[in-house]
Amino acid sequence: MVDKKVVIDIKRDLFGANEEAASENAEIFKKHGIKSVDIMGSVGTGKTHLIEALCERLKGKYRILMLAGDLATTIDADRVAAHGVDTLQINTQTACHLDARMIRYALNNVDLSKYDLVFIENVGNLICPAGYSLGVDKKIVVVSVTEGPYMIRKHPLTIKRADMVVINKIDLAEALEFDVGHLIADVREVDANIPVVAVSSKTGEGLDGLINVLDL
Amino acid sequence: MVDKKVVIDIKRDLFGANEEAASENAEIFKKHGIKSVDIMGSVGTGKTHLIEALCERLKGKYRILMLAGDLATTIDADRVAAHGVDTLQINTQTACHLDARMIRYALNNVDLSKYDLVFIENVGNLICPAGYSLGVDKKIVVVSVTEGPYMIRKHPLTIKRADMVVINKIDLAEALEFDVGHLIADVREVDANIPVVAVSSKTGEGLDGLINVLDL
Repeated sequence: MVDKKVVIDIKRDLFGANEEAASENAEIFKKHGIKSVDIMGSVGTGKTHLIEALCERLKGKYRILMLAGDLATTIDADRVAAHGVDTLQINTQTACHLDARMIRYALNNVDLSKYDLVFIENVGNLICPAGYSLGVDKKIVVVSVTEGPYMIRKHPLTIKRADMVVINKIDLAEALEFDVGHLIADVREVDANIPVVAVSSKTGEGLDGLINVLDL
Repeated sequence: MVDKKVVIDIKRDLFGANEEAASENAEIFKKHGIKSVDIMGSVGTGKTHLIEALCERLKGKYRILMLAGDLATTIDADRVAAHGVDTLQINTQTACHLDARMIRYALNNVDLSKYDLVFIENVGNLICPAGYSLGVDKKIVVVSVTEGPYMIRKHPLTIKRADMVVINKIDLAEALEFDVGHLIADVREVDANIPVVAVSSKTGEGLDGLINVLDL
């Protein structure tokens, strides 16, 4: 029996619960001395390839765990696992983003004393993952020169909610007549101070700089 | 005062209301003898370019209205308007998809006796727009050879909910070492019968075939 007016603010309740779980994740990471990075970006921007390249450079220094978020398949986790890195695939079925409770569920199912660094590859989608904190140290957004010139201007909120922008596949910029400088200017319009790093996961260009900015 | 147990099934209520609005949109289109196409796909797959190319070929035959869905900006509507086509931009702010009520609101704000064909460019996102019927004749999904090889296998539900798959930017396939045949096989794994058309909005290759399959 409900005896007073009950107002359900879905947005507040959903996001409030997520923020709470994110804070708890942050505590878990801190307690175990684990650095953590959430990698957002549309499908095909090369998030997995970037993580593979970072793992190759960092696996001598850190014990790495990679959490892969996808609606279906274990393709991404399998690719990273091939580099000798532990992985855990989260299949969201229909959900367009990872949320903090999915991450907590994953963290509860691994022995965290075995890791110093967690990469989380979010679901491939430039919009929804930006709305959900996961409790990580850094939330980065990966865009690619293959996406055409407007992805920053069309998604200002995603940039505002990220800690860093990575422009990937710059080895293809010339062939696609893509102006990287123009894209950086678009980022600056939204956020004057956010770090922007241009890289090629294929050639390795820019990756040392990225690792430096990530403080890894 | 609430005197009985009330269960709110958010998913059923939200999607039920959307289906109802979609049916009403379908009635509106039918009443005005308007053909309608919903174009889904990730950011940067060339949805706008495809619509521009289709408008160039079809504007002598149809009086076209284009509805553009984006979180922010009027870039896409402006591009299509430059071809002498009427456009209306729907800025969703934070919403990752168009829904049927947004479309109805737009339709209520134009003189529908002026049009025979409506192109709707959905928000750039391969996941969420698939969940919302808009009441159109055909819902097509555009993928691009720039997205890497896994976008079909990772998004089976989007394919299942579409009436047609368009593989765009095939002029870049060779430079990107992209296997279009392999992608088509991935589509066939999900749906043995869905039409698949490979096109280049840039060179025009495949567009006549697409217009044919769209029955336009």
